[in-house]
Amino acid sequence: MADPKSKNIFWHGANVTQDQRQGLTGQKGCILWFTGLSGSGKSTVSRRVEELLLERGVFSYSLDGDNVRFGLNSDLGFSPEDRTENIRRIGQVAKLFADSTCITTTAFISPYRAGRDAARDLMPDGHFIEVFVDTPLDVCEERDPKGLYKKARAGIIPNFTGISAPYEAPESAEIVLKTAEHDLDACAGQVINYLVSKGFIKAA
Amino acid sequence: MADPKSKNIFWHGANVTQDQRQGLTGQKGCILWFTGLSGSGKSTVSRRVEELLLERGVFSYSLDGDNVRFGLNSDLGFSPEDRTENIRRIGQVAKLFADSTCITTTAFISPYRAGRDAARDLMPDGHFIEVFVDTPLDVCEERDPKGLYKKARAGIIPNFTGISAPYEAPESAEIVLKTAEHDLDACAGQVINYLVSKGFIKAA
Repeated sequence: MADPKSKNIFWHGANVTQDQRQGLTGQKGCILWFTGLSGSGKSTVSRRVEELLLERGVFSYSLDGDNVRFGLNSDLGFSPEDRTENIRRIGQVAKLFADSTCITTTAFISPYRAGRDAARDLMPDGHFIEVFVDTPLDVCEERDPKGLYKKARAGIIPNFTGISAPYEAPESAEIVLKTAEHDLDACAGQVINYLVSKGFIKAA
Repeated sequence: MADPKSKNIFWHGANVTQDQRQGLTGQKGCILWFTGLSGSGKSTVSRRVEELLLERGVFSYSLDGDNVRFGLNSDLGFSPEDRTENIRRIGQVAKLFADSTCITTTAFISPYRAGRDAARDLMPDGHFIEVFVDTPLDVCEERDPKGLYKKARAGIIPNFTGISAPYEAPESAEIVLKTAEHDLDACAGQVINYLVSKGFIKAA
């Protein structure tokens, strides 16, 4: 049981720097920010990307409604203020994950440019990757996996993005996915290729 | 460019299960919840634990005032309600990190048993590890790294834990660290040994 030289030297030492952390984990963190209409395929593609990365030995994690809405953001509803706070917190948590060097995906409608841009502004240049899941409204509505469009059309759900609330499509997303034209693995592969091309992960 | 069989099959597939994830990353997530007075050494030990884990090739991340108070929780002050919400969010974010299989440390005073127990309740049995940084008040006050005790004694900072606000010491913390008796690496080593003994990480 070594005695400290002085009880006073037990200070908060220098943290692990980002360079050290990248050296130790062998990866470089970033946020893949999926945005698109309900039913566009955000969660499906982001979860598949996560799976492909994990299989490559790359640490990855997905934030989406499944693990955020009923936990961290369970106190938030769907008012404009709460939607803004929802996206703000997700941006901050994704930033923490990216700081850990995790390849972090987020999959939320995030309909407003301002909210997405605020999340982008938290990150170093190039480390926020906007992924526009560009699925036409009629396709999303035809899929309607949770029956939400039906309820929105019937007026049971108010302020539904694409029906009774606006969706501000990205103007210069780093990645645009066409899920009505390409299958899941083609879309996920497009994301993986982007990560390789930008040096976030190594080619397989 | 493969065509999906149907535009309607682009559903949210099964997520990566926790077992699969552990198999792919080779680690098992948990929360090391450091609690103790200001100046007790929570951040210092937790950051050292993180560093030692990273050096072993174990994915680890520390949540503390440095990266949480000015980001995710920048909207919160020090009222009782805000302190409760602060700890609630930290518990939820730590849970997400642990779910990613990260060995997650949190270093906040977290003076109330109820707040710590609420965080514990989010986790599977055994995966919430309370680390009581049991440094006597007089030692913390002598260290006073940020001059906060001086300000608290002068009445400049109200509701200061240990001086003018209560600290509810853990009654059955999984780990108790005596930073006034042992040095930094001894304390960090005690945490690492616990993780090995419980099978969260392998022996070096």
